[in-house]
Amino acid sequence: MPSRITAIYHVRSDARAIGARAQAIAVEQSVEMPLTAIADQDILDEIVGRVEDISDIGNGVFAVRIGLAAATVGDDPGQLINMLFGNTSLQEDVTLYDAEFPEELVRRFGGPHHGLAGFRQRTGIKGRAFTCTALKPQGLAPKQLAELAAHFARGGIDFIKDDHGIADQDYSPFEARVNAVADTLREVAEETGHLAHYVPSVTGTARAAQNYIAQARNARLNTFMVQPMIMGLSNFRDLVDGNSSVNFFAHPALAGASHIDPALLFGKIFRMFGADTVIFPNHGGRFGYSPPTCRRIAETALAPWHGRAATIPVPAGGMSIDRVGEMLDFYGADVMLLIGGALLDAGERLTEETAAFVRKVRDYRYAH
Amino acid sequence: MPSRITAIYHVRSDARAIGARAQAIAVEQSVEMPLTAIADQDILDEIVGRVEDISDIGNGVFAVRIGLAAATVGDDPGQLINMLFGNTSLQEDVTLYDAEFPEELVRRFGGPHHGLAGFRQRTGIKGRAFTCTALKPQGLAPKQLAELAAHFARGGIDFIKDDHGIADQDYSPFEARVNAVADTLREVAEETGHLAHYVPSVTGTARAAQNYIAQARNARLNTFMVQPMIMGLSNFRDLVDGNSSVNFFAHPALAGASHIDPALLFGKIFRMFGADTVIFPNHGGRFGYSPPTCRRIAETALAPWHGRAATIPVPAGGMSIDRVGEMLDFYGADVMLLIGGALLDAGERLTEETAAFVRKVRDYRYAH
Repeated sequence: MPSRITAIYHVRSDARAIGARAQAIAVEQSVEMPLTAIADQDILDEIVGRVEDISDIGNGVFAVRIGLAAATVGDDPGQLINMLFGNTSLQEDVTLYDAEFPEELVRRFGGPHHGLAGFRQRTGIKGRAFTCTALKPQGLAPKQLAELAAHFARGGIDFIKDDHGIADQDYSPFEARVNAVADTLREVAEETGHLAHYVPSVTGTARAAQNYIAQARNARLNTFMVQPMIMGLSNFRDLVDGNSSVNFFAHPALAGASHIDPALLFGKIFRMFGADTVIFPNHGGRFGYSPPTCRRIAETALAPWHGRAATIPVPAGGMSIDRVGEMLDFYGADVMLLIGGALLDAGERLTEETAAFVRKVRDYRYAH
Repeated sequence: MPSRITAIYHVRSDARAIGARAQAIAVEQSVEMPLTAIADQDILDEIVGRVEDISDIGNGVFAVRIGLAAATVGDDPGQLINMLFGNTSLQEDVTLYDAEFPEELVRRFGGPHHGLAGFRQRTGIKGRAFTCTALKPQGLAPKQLAELAAHFARGGIDFIKDDHGIADQDYSPFEARVNAVADTLREVAEETGHLAHYVPSVTGTARAAQNYIAQARNARLNTFMVQPMIMGLSNFRDLVDGNSSVNFFAHPALAGASHIDPALLFGKIFRMFGADTVIFPNHGGRFGYSPPTCRRIAETALAPWHGRAATIPVPAGGMSIDRVGEMLDFYGADVMLLIGGALLDAGERLTEETAAFVRKVRDYRYAH
């Protein structure tokens, strides 16, 4: 029996039309032609998408389960998203809500090389949430970014990532920036004993991204942030596999509003292709995700799944120190809290504010 | 004065809130932090996004014009889409409706190497629409796909593209398929005098895509289809620039429903990065685009624009021969008509049905 991926679409439809609409999606996402014109019985049996179930979930929306042939995906991550949602993403009535993958497919793509357990082992941070902040604003020169990083590091933060707008711009070239920040963080570590991990954002073509990583590894860095939906999933996975000793943060840029459920995209797809952490918009911040959506993202990223390493959820987007307790109540210890702008707002008191954030996370008592 | 890109967002909001919401988008898409925490006057003046205009366009939607610093984009296509819509794509109330780019930015990215004029020159097809069809279904072996291609070619079609689901699968490896189809089309050309152009779909990592193109060029092919939103825009542009004698079709997979207006995405962004043709869902087919949306896509792709080559619009998705006249009335001669499944539905009469399509396009008298 051929191996199938089960895609679960949420489709707005009326009850009389949903059967035909589900069948149309099954065809669109597989052979994309009239079945009457297919003479080959093997293709009808093994390649054509198959509607497995339709259920009314209320409010005029139906959950449609469609089996898609794993053979059409082969070994290519881009082809996976193409088969799941390539053409159907152009239709407004459909959301790709979830997908169940055959174990051998997930194992073949592999998942994170490190994930939660790898981060805990490498950093020695046990039993508490990780802390993270961001270098901002873009437009600052390498020296200024390094000074900012020093303040954060003195405050005891675990990870300092680039703002996702920071790339390889004239006012802050990648190599100069990375060397300046990495050198500064090592100097601070010699003074304080605490080494904050710098996470440069790696952008551009696949070739450029690989070169950036090589440059940054010369500066003894081993954690990087990428934007999988902008880089392309195939190139993301290729970068992960070509740098298996490196840890990867996945940033959600361009991942939203494309009618792919974020728990699927961040918690399964980004994870399957190797994200060690996934950044996503927390509820109550600048973005519209609800608490149940955030819960599902975090639970999906952390759940046991075909033997793959767990991915660390990183809720972010307008978070503040005031919310640390509430967020740890909500997410527990297996989370990375990312506070950027709200720390920077402290101005002269940046180190102290960072220290307050770090202390709050360290002192929190987990109920579970 | 620093060079600015003007992004035009359509934002659902009430009138009292729109001023603050527009300012929040300007900050989100530039420095992503509280402005009060930015000490550097140059960054406030030159890097922070600037709300240039807000106008009520009815139905609770406002058009917001925001100036974004071109310096933040540098030379990277991925960074361009990141700055235009990276984070804001995660917010449901916003559509990226259009963008105006500084001339020097468009010239730097370059646009299509060939475009409409290049296709006309290479093929010798003047004063009429181009015809195109697709090899389907995926699951067929190379020999079967080549047989299909022969039928289309005998019918006189100009271009035969791969179905966008056809990649490099076990049942039809890329190189075997490309050689089989290319050889067959040359044999048909020796008989009939008409060489149909085969357009293989190029997928996978950036490196894999380059290798596929090299393999296919050995088979003397020089037109390829890519899926820019799956490959990543930076890698798409890199592929175009590394193969400047090649013609590129852009397929819209994963490009939809992400709240980016298709006229902007296909007609400007794909064009800026080098698409010679852009495939998009025609109105009245399997997708929901309206006639005015299709009109805007075609007009944008063809309009004079900073001296860049025009990109050929390719309306598709459930088209049939019956609609040829109506589509040529609508689009005029500078279009490529793509009919796939409806031809295949002719079964044994595939060559004749293709010939009927070709004849209808050749015999059409353009009013304008």
